Amino acid sequence: MASAVVPATPATLSAGVLAGDRRALARAISLVENRADGYRELLTGLHARVGRAFRIGITGPPGAGKSTLVDALAAQWADRGDRVGIVAVDPTSPFTGGALLGDRVRMGDLAERPEVYVRSMATRGSTGGIAAATRDICSVLDAYGFDWLLIETVGVGQIEIEVMHICDAVVVVFVPESGDGVQALKAGLIEIAHVFVVNKADRPGADQLATELSLVVAHRTETDDWRPPVLTTEATRRRGIDTLEQEIVRCREHLVDTGRLHTARRRQARVELENLLKERLHRYLSGHVRLDAWIDDLTERMAHGDLDPHRGADMIWQRLRAESDVGTTRE
Amino acid sequence: MASAVVPATPATLSAGVLAGDRRALARAISLVENRADGYRELLTGLHARVGRAFRIGITGPPGAGKSTLVDALAAQWADRGDRVGIVAVDPTSPFTGGALLGDRVRMGDLAERPEVYVRSMATRGSTGGIAAATRDICSVLDAYGFDWLLIETVGVGQIEIEVMHICDAVVVVFVPESGDGVQALKAGLIEIAHVFVVNKADRPGADQLATELSLVVAHRTETDDWRPPVLTTEATRRRGIDTLEQEIVRCREHLVDTGRLHTARRRQARVELENLLKERLHRYLSGHVRLDAWIDDLTERMAHGDLDPHRGADMIWQRLRAESDVGTTRE
Repeated sequence: MASAVVPATPATLSAGVLAGDRRALARAISLVENRADGYRELLTGLHARVGRAFRIGITGPPGAGKSTLVDALAAQWADRGDRVGIVAVDPTSPFTGGALLGDRVRMGDLAERPEVYVRSMATRGSTGGIAAATRDICSVLDAYGFDWLLIETVGVGQIEIEVMHICDAVVVVFVPESGDGVQALKAGLIEIAHVFVVNKADRPGADQLATELSLVVAHRTETDDWRPPVLTTEATRRRGIDTLEQEIVRCREHLVDTGRLHTARRRQARVELENLLKERLHRYLSGHVRLDAWIDDLTERMAHGDLDPHRGADMIWQRLRAESDVGTTRE
Repeated sequence: MASAVVPATPATLSAGVLAGDRRALARAISLVENRADGYRELLTGLHARVGRAFRIGITGPPGAGKSTLVDALAAQWADRGDRVGIVAVDPTSPFTGGALLGDRVRMGDLAERPEVYVRSMATRGSTGGIAAATRDICSVLDAYGFDWLLIETVGVGQIEIEVMHICDAVVVVFVPESGDGVQALKAGLIEIAHVFVVNKADRPGADQLATELSLVVAHRTETDDWRPPVLTTEATRRRGIDTLEQEIVRCREHLVDTGRLHTARRRQARVELENLLKERLHRYLSGHVRLDAWIDDLTERMAHGDLDPHRGADMIWQRLRAESDVGTTRE
């Protein structure tokens, strides 16, 4: 937070976001990202204006040029006056310490343009927590009035898959040398991808990988009415970005027309409910003074081998269900 | 499951494990890993015999030689008649498809030795789920009678940290070229490490990294009574393994004598309780016929923007608390 600013309440922040105040936007996102006091009020204040932006997940292996592709796409939209929010979700590695997307170099003045807003989330939370925070940040950007949200993750694990599940459409980016076309099949990515991109297409092997991916896609199409296009791009030279943009627009139309967007958003809502309830459970377990001594006793017995953990969980669950503590809805 | 075997019940499996039957052990682990029907009964049947084994987590960046180090350590113990269970927790990458530890080549006949049992978990579950399953597998191995459990993870993310939290002691393995000594500090690994190893110590930079790590450790020691030793090894030639083994034994003694082992196990129990309750919550949300239509309605309203997700979570939480459904403890 900047110094010497007027203290912001959730209400003034949400009003600022809705009025298009960029500093309010930045502070609102920080509040949500950090789960700081008042973040729920803030989100509640924005809720009525959420739902218009189209959320595009961009994922792929490290080194595939995702950031450059995202920037090129954003510039394309910004050039015609569309507004674009970018969220780079960047799970840190405990061994590199820093962000896996740390080599990100933003194109020219992209982040300075009024149509574009870029935000990195370098985070080390639990998977469900990252996806939930990302979704809430997207809600803030959505309420602010962005037309397109680009959610970029580096593809190294479970976190990326969960983040992709909060998106309306998913673009998977490969490079020729990754030769990962067939591997993607195994990994459950193929089912959630709407567009495949072979980036750095000037390198050898690009056509072969594109052909391979097309075969995989053709195979899948039997059970679906959207056939994911396989595109080739050179993001650094902005080649192929036009086509990518057109395909994303076409995908959105398809999803709206077929009702799939609505279905996807219901599925997202269900996942979100479960994540929020897990957060609630965590607070219940860690915040209850009355419970604490009792849970301490249970863990003591478990540590001594006198209590089966599953039986311990049963006991807490029973107590959770039995207590008629209406006050739990306060917060 | 092998074909043409007598159908096993949880009771016969747990009896088999306690009697030292290796085939029962393998089947029991599969049951637990897959959360298959009866896994809870199985664990309950073993519970009284769990708690004797010392659980050592081994983590570090890819390419640090963890598998070779684990094998050398296991061989060392097996040579003197100690029994060693090895669990290789191997989060798959959605992009490589396969296991990150896939290059594992087990030393000679280690897996054939009666004192040693090796099990790989290639899994793509949620972080909490992997840690919980790993812990339950350790319980099975513990009940079977292993003296030492070596839990090996490749260090690329949050999952490894969570898995390390179910261990009694943690060994962090580096290689000279990783130069990650200082980075580890940032990543919260330093707090949970009991022993640092610089493996492949014949390579340039080993001494420098060891010195750097020693400085970091000395700094930390002000607030702790265990100073993690910094060792150098060449696992492929079994150099330095004696010392590593002695330090682990010394660490165990220290943890027992100071009561820290007991504290750690209580902390593990608490984490486990929370993970089990999250699983319970998931079953509650997905298994209740009565709830389903109602939750569908909530998600419908959320998807339309008519219901704030946090308010939706409040409503489900309230209902969860209010229902006096004692039947929930059945399973």
